[in-house]
Amino acid sequence: MDPDAVAKAFVEHYYSTFDANRAGLANLYQEGSMLTFEGQKIQGSQSIVAKLTSLPFQQCKHNITTVDCQPSGSGGMLVFVSGNLQLAGEQHALKFSQVFSY
Amino acid sequence: MDPDAVAKAFVEHYYSTFDANRAGLANLYQEGSMLTFEGQKIQGSQSIVAKLTSLPFQQCKHNITTVDCQPSGSGGMLVFVSGNLQLAGEQHALKFSQVFSY
Repeated sequence: MDPDAVAKAFVEHYYSTFDANRAGLANLYQEGSMLTFEGQKIQGSQSIVAKLTSLPFQQCKHNITTVDCQPSGSGGMLVFVSGNLQLAGEQHALKFSQVFSY
Repeated sequence: MDPDAVAKAFVEHYYSTFDANRAGLANLYQEGSMLTFEGQKIQGSQSIVAKLTSLPFQQCKHNITTVDCQPSGSGGMLVFVSGNLQLAGEQHALKFSQVFSY
């Protein structure tokens, strides 16, 4: 499977997990993982999931617009995602972007 | 100097070079560098600068809104930038985001 296809599959899995069962994201992070969220640095799977599950909205749906990826370091990948985040009960979607590095 | 300050200084230098002397960006890329630009992958300093200097606008001004960075791999950094790009003669600025990894 080519690396771009793996990256796209990962991104789809990440956001469908986020929307359906946010606590399940714990399996997609490791102890050494770091999330920078609007300027705040959060380290480790458990702390990252605590942050994501405490965001001030419950039901949401991520719609992915772009996935760009390129090789990074030795066998790693850098993945840039942009899209829209629709919150339950809100008329307008929010724009979001996120970077994954692995 | 702390890594966040280095990242911010790099980002400011990158966009001031972009706005003042786009060809000068060649010094900020290496032969092994890759740029993914709206889905197109471009490898090497010379090809990257050829792409950036061929963009369909001349005078521009990048205004940086956010710079988020975190450690990546062994001594590397991952830097996420968002902001507005004002083109000469255009009323409305374009939103942009870019990721640097080094």
